Amino acid sequence: MKKIAILGSTGSIGTQTLEIVRENPDLQVAGLAAGSNAALMEKQIREFMPKLAVMWSEAAAGELKVRVADLPVRVLHGMDGLLELAEMEGYEILVTAVVGMIGIRPTIAAIESGKTIALANKETLVTAGHLIMPLAKKHGVPILPVDSEHSAIFQSMNGEDHSGVSKIWLTASGGPFRGKKREELAGMRAEDALKHPNWSMGRKITVDSASLVNKALEVMEAGWLFDVDLDNIEVLVHPQSIIHSMVEYKDGAVIAQLGMPDMKLPIQYALFYPERRPMAGERVDFFKLGQITFERPDRDTFSGLDLGLKAAKLGGSMPTVFNAANEKAVAMFLDHAIGFLEIPELIEKCMNHHRVIENPNVNEILQTEAETYEYIEHIKENGSN
Amino acid sequence: MKKIAILGSTGSIGTQTLEIVRENPDLQVAGLAAGSNAALMEKQIREFMPKLAVMWSEAAAGELKVRVADLPVRVLHGMDGLLELAEMEGYEILVTAVVGMIGIRPTIAAIESGKTIALANKETLVTAGHLIMPLAKKHGVPILPVDSEHSAIFQSMNGEDHSGVSKIWLTASGGPFRGKKREELAGMRAEDALKHPNWSMGRKITVDSASLVNKALEVMEAGWLFDVDLDNIEVLVHPQSIIHSMVEYKDGAVIAQLGMPDMKLPIQYALFYPERRPMAGERVDFFKLGQITFERPDRDTFSGLDLGLKAAKLGGSMPTVFNAANEKAVAMFLDHAIGFLEIPELIEKCMNHHRVIENPNVNEILQTEAETYEYIEHIKENGSN
Repeated sequence: MKKIAILGSTGSIGTQTLEIVRENPDLQVAGLAAGSNAALMEKQIREFMPKLAVMWSEAAAGELKVRVADLPVRVLHGMDGLLELAEMEGYEILVTAVVGMIGIRPTIAAIESGKTIALANKETLVTAGHLIMPLAKKHGVPILPVDSEHSAIFQSMNGEDHSGVSKIWLTASGGPFRGKKREELAGMRAEDALKHPNWSMGRKITVDSASLVNKALEVMEAGWLFDVDLDNIEVLVHPQSIIHSMVEYKDGAVIAQLGMPDMKLPIQYALFYPERRPMAGERVDFFKLGQITFERPDRDTFSGLDLGLKAAKLGGSMPTVFNAANEKAVAMFLDHAIGFLEIPELIEKCMNHHRVIENPNVNEILQTEAETYEYIEHIKENGSN
Repeated sequence: MKKIAILGSTGSIGTQTLEIVRENPDLQVAGLAAGSNAALMEKQIREFMPKLAVMWSEAAAGELKVRVADLPVRVLHGMDGLLELAEMEGYEILVTAVVGMIGIRPTIAAIESGKTIALANKETLVTAGHLIMPLAKKHGVPILPVDSEHSAIFQSMNGEDHSGVSKIWLTASGGPFRGKKREELAGMRAEDALKHPNWSMGRKITVDSASLVNKALEVMEAGWLFDVDLDNIEVLVHPQSIIHSMVEYKDGAVIAQLGMPDMKLPIQYALFYPERRPMAGERVDFFKLGQITFERPDRDTFSGLDLGLKAAKLGGSMPTVFNAANEKAVAMFLDHAIGFLEIPELIEKCMNHHRVIENPNVNEILQTEAETYEYIEHIKENGSN
């Protein structure tokens, strides 16, 4: 029996994680945390019977308490609740599938209490990789990637000596706007950005995929996870999303992981690693596929990619600015408050405004996030000058 | 210091193995064996200073003795010489790169004396896999594949539990005649068959690649090496020869090994396994590549593939008949004595004529080979009736 807890159980990764629990009777859920969807959380509690459930929103926690009053489950809320979930005894793997920097403190708490981390929250490593990776090493805690690209890299390094890695080919579908030029992008609305050709994901990450900001975040995450220099991570547009990423070794061999675009595979791989469990689902039919293609990313049009790499190279608190500015800008784009091309513009303005803090601690990271949010509000109200 | 010996040192794999020795000063050559090229053997002896050199031909051994009279090297000839090389002390890895069933006895002798086998000789497993694999297991001797496809499969299983394998995708370039129909093949001559689009290899294997007989032999070899049912090995035509083969697991994940078509990589991988040594050479540029394609093999036109699989399923001595008949037929084709389409016709006639011996021992395998050769001579002189 393997016991897990999930941060973000009502989201896309969270619900798919619970599907895997449903299919594998030797998995058990010790705790669940979500934002505000008390109705779905109630259903999940009734099915998976965790000991602890946490809602980010206090109001949702109040609603949930009423809904599950007949069940032996504790209901908590807010950061204290998340931290209690992270630290509590009685489970081995924490799936961190919340969106945003909210994941940092619980991830640190889980590592300090010896939990294996199945990491689906990009912001944790993007903003705090310099804190998380040494801490995980110190506590001997594995950080297992759940993202399809990072899982592919991880699988492609299985049994290999990491010192033999010369390059990572991080694949990208190119998103719904691949091939479009700036003139066309200017008129794109949230509805257009949300039509991803291959992957079914949350709204925010789907927009990030359209802007290639997601790929910049993934490059940063890969750098931390696999201790590879950012200059040795090459973004490769591969519209069919069959090759999920590749690792090139110093002898010229390239090991790749391929599969249908289905997040359940990397989730299950992380939950049972190093065991590979059978899983039902569609298989790649190479005869039917016929061909797969590769292109360079259009870095001029999708400037979010290079902005992210610039933030990563500046380091310190700058990736936090990049990430926070993007988060806010995407929310505004989804609300039809700004156009698609304003997303990288806002990010760039925030980056230009920021003075890098070297090796920021968690407070400084969260402070940088708050300041970035404020600066975006300021720009909205006053323009950037 | 790692010491090796090479069976077939003057051939394509043999000379490339020696290039790797040249580039890696901690490799040392204890023994070399070749067919009849005494001049090249002399050069190899002067450069690599083995203790023992074996020529298959007695005349060539006589010539070689004169050529290297000034050097402290023993010169032997024939099967006794090969067996002495296989059994001698003072080296760890035998690279078996001779063409034909001549490799079986020395391979067995090397396994029995505890040598690791770097296997580039397909015939050994195709005809005697049922003897070799249990013997290697008994002596705890690794059989490391040197073929690019089998090395790719081996690399794609690195660190994986073999029981999780559901399928092998064995890739094939399709050879120089891919896309041609029977009418066109009828007129093809040796010169046409020898123009392989991607790989530079020996003459016999290049013709086998054109007829897909080579792929049938590889399926059989893969079945033995990786203990996979032949029905779970799918031949996939991939004309660019970038993906060297793939392994599909029970969770739907596919792990592939890719690289430029260069035999030095699988040779070096086998020599240093489990270490992956740096190697110079061209790298795959996925941007430049642009696309890779996949097709079903044309089993009707290239009937050698299915004939081989039929021989494999009949088992026992039948794969020996398939292999021996092909060997003879290819030699006749290279001599312009028969047309390209007569290769599978001759193989089929020999298979139809043969009564399977179950679990043949080495003598029975070699006897079957001799009988097949005789039967082909008989057909040539009298027709098949």
